[in-house]
Amino acid sequence: VRLANFTQKLLELDFTNYKNDFLEYLEKNKYTQEPQNLYKPVNYILSIGGKRMRPILTLMSAELFNQSYENAIPAAMAVEVFHNFTLLHDDIMDDAPLRRGRPTVHEKWDVNTAILSGDVMMIYAYEFLRNYEPQLFSELMAVFNKTAIEVCEGQQMDVDFEDRNDVLIQDYLEMIKLKTSVLVACALKMGALVGGASKKDANAMYQFGLNLGLAFQLQDDYLDAFGNPETFGKQVGGDIIENKKTYLYIEGLKTANEDDRRALENWFLKENFDQDKKIREVKAIFERSGSKKAIQNEIEKYTNKAIEDLGNLDLSKDKKDQLKAFAYYLMKRKV
Amino acid sequence: VRLANFTQKLLELDFTNYKNDFLEYLEKNKYTQEPQNLYKPVNYILSIGGKRMRPILTLMSAELFNQSYENAIPAAMAVEVFHNFTLLHDDIMDDAPLRRGRPTVHEKWDVNTAILSGDVMMIYAYEFLRNYEPQLFSELMAVFNKTAIEVCEGQQMDVDFEDRNDVLIQDYLEMIKLKTSVLVACALKMGALVGGASKKDANAMYQFGLNLGLAFQLQDDYLDAFGNPETFGKQVGGDIIENKKTYLYIEGLKTANEDDRRALENWFLKENFDQDKKIREVKAIFERSGSKKAIQNEIEKYTNKAIEDLGNLDLSKDKKDQLKAFAYYLMKRKV
Repeated sequence: VRLANFTQKLLELDFTNYKNDFLEYLEKNKYTQEPQNLYKPVNYILSIGGKRMRPILTLMSAELFNQSYENAIPAAMAVEVFHNFTLLHDDIMDDAPLRRGRPTVHEKWDVNTAILSGDVMMIYAYEFLRNYEPQLFSELMAVFNKTAIEVCEGQQMDVDFEDRNDVLIQDYLEMIKLKTSVLVACALKMGALVGGASKKDANAMYQFGLNLGLAFQLQDDYLDAFGNPETFGKQVGGDIIENKKTYLYIEGLKTANEDDRRALENWFLKENFDQDKKIREVKAIFERSGSKKAIQNEIEKYTNKAIEDLGNLDLSKDKKDQLKAFAYYLMKRKV
Repeated sequence: VRLANFTQKLLELDFTNYKNDFLEYLEKNKYTQEPQNLYKPVNYILSIGGKRMRPILTLMSAELFNQSYENAIPAAMAVEVFHNFTLLHDDIMDDAPLRRGRPTVHEKWDVNTAILSGDVMMIYAYEFLRNYEPQLFSELMAVFNKTAIEVCEGQQMDVDFEDRNDVLIQDYLEMIKLKTSVLVACALKMGALVGGASKKDANAMYQFGLNLGLAFQLQDDYLDAFGNPETFGKQVGGDIIENKKTYLYIEGLKTANEDDRRALENWFLKENFDQDKKIREVKAIFERSGSKKAIQNEIEKYTNKAIEDLGNLDLSKDKKDQLKAFAYYLMKRKV
């Protein structure tokens, strides 16, 4: 019965309402004011899509503790606007030409525009939170601002890692926790707070999100190398081409045999190379060294940890199964 | 008697206590945490000085409505940290090598560092406001966030003006209002709110600050061209060298005779020139055209407007005279 109920939940997972209501609010809040050179890039980055996972999490979380999630839409918006602000600035730092298949803001406009439009987005994230009455606003700000600081710290760690050759798996996990997981956790906790959850439940949702976020980012790293090109949506092997020291690389260096280790290091030093050949050979090393298997184990480990966290929640079995189904859904995703 | 009291106030103006207490708090809140590459630039920009006018205004304003200004120190810090965040990002956009006579953050480190350290400073500005209980926090956030948005809009207008030849005096005044005055006004209003002022008084302080801020920025423009090199502290003529379209330039173009107008336009198109000669000749045009006189009149006008705003305040004559003295002090400043 337990499993049947869970399988049913997995089949029932449907984010259409959350997403549609969110997108409607986004559309309604388009920036039409002056100066247009400041606000056009904001509309652009917010309109070019993405999975909208973070705002969906906020709405889903709110609905678990309340019949309605409508009140949580401004909080969901704050999370999404903040997330997109970080994309604008991260893309400058990475000198990235594309985001979601479209030109990045600093490419379409220029670096100064991407800096300043990013800045005003960050401020607008707070503006959306100001929709809540003082006590709730204050509680939301506590988790939101702590998270925002951590995301900057995670980004700095990511930048620092580029010049380091001694990055350990635990350093990498700490970096992705700060850069990615805390915002997933924050999205869930903010939804819970708006939904009227107890402090204990809001914190349990945060903890669930932290582990879910780690599994999510590791799955991102995995799919970037081993995703199916037909379904992945992005270029498979992007991290490998850009010499990104992800979990697969760090673990690969540690566990590969001497020849493979040297080959891997050499591939990651080259400036000019045959892209297809590099992707093929590096992936083969990831497989042989066991780092592919290791990341799969980690993804499962953090998904299971997230599911264990559900034990701390004062929610019905039914609702917990919904969250569990969502965790499995993320782990099995192909995109 | 009235004048004697006011003159007395002018002589008594002393910001030493405000400044010392603020600097002590700043020192106590130095960033020692990791990652150091994120926080060292924050300590650097916050430590290289400046007049600290904005935090002093917050503390002075709080003290007008309360016996003590101690409670207002975190709010003063929020204003100063926000102001310095804007300097970090503005200096990237202007490609400025120096700030307060020291290398800018993007010069001493790099552009990416200046972006990210600036971002985290903005977030910390909010963190300092979180020291206040929810109701007051919410009121502070209302004025602070509105101001932060306007400052970005003002910066965008400033950027846009560089490529425009049709900027009117009223556009310029709107730009400096958004880029500079609103933060002066915000600093005063936040101090008033922390000091327990009524809504009416807090808004009157804001209005006073808005006019004071306009006078302040126009005085900045004036001193940049006509300041005494011995006392000014910065290079006199910096705006002229950088072809900045300040009040003096826009008004000069409008009121100069045909020959002077052409000469002024030519000077502002040249890439290579004798700096001393350019400064000398452009200043002569500003004098002949009457734009020097016009900016002096404007400074006096906005100072007087600010003083008129004091009429809306429920404060003792004594305290109003203190604010009036401060306004005169700013108008007569040489630095």
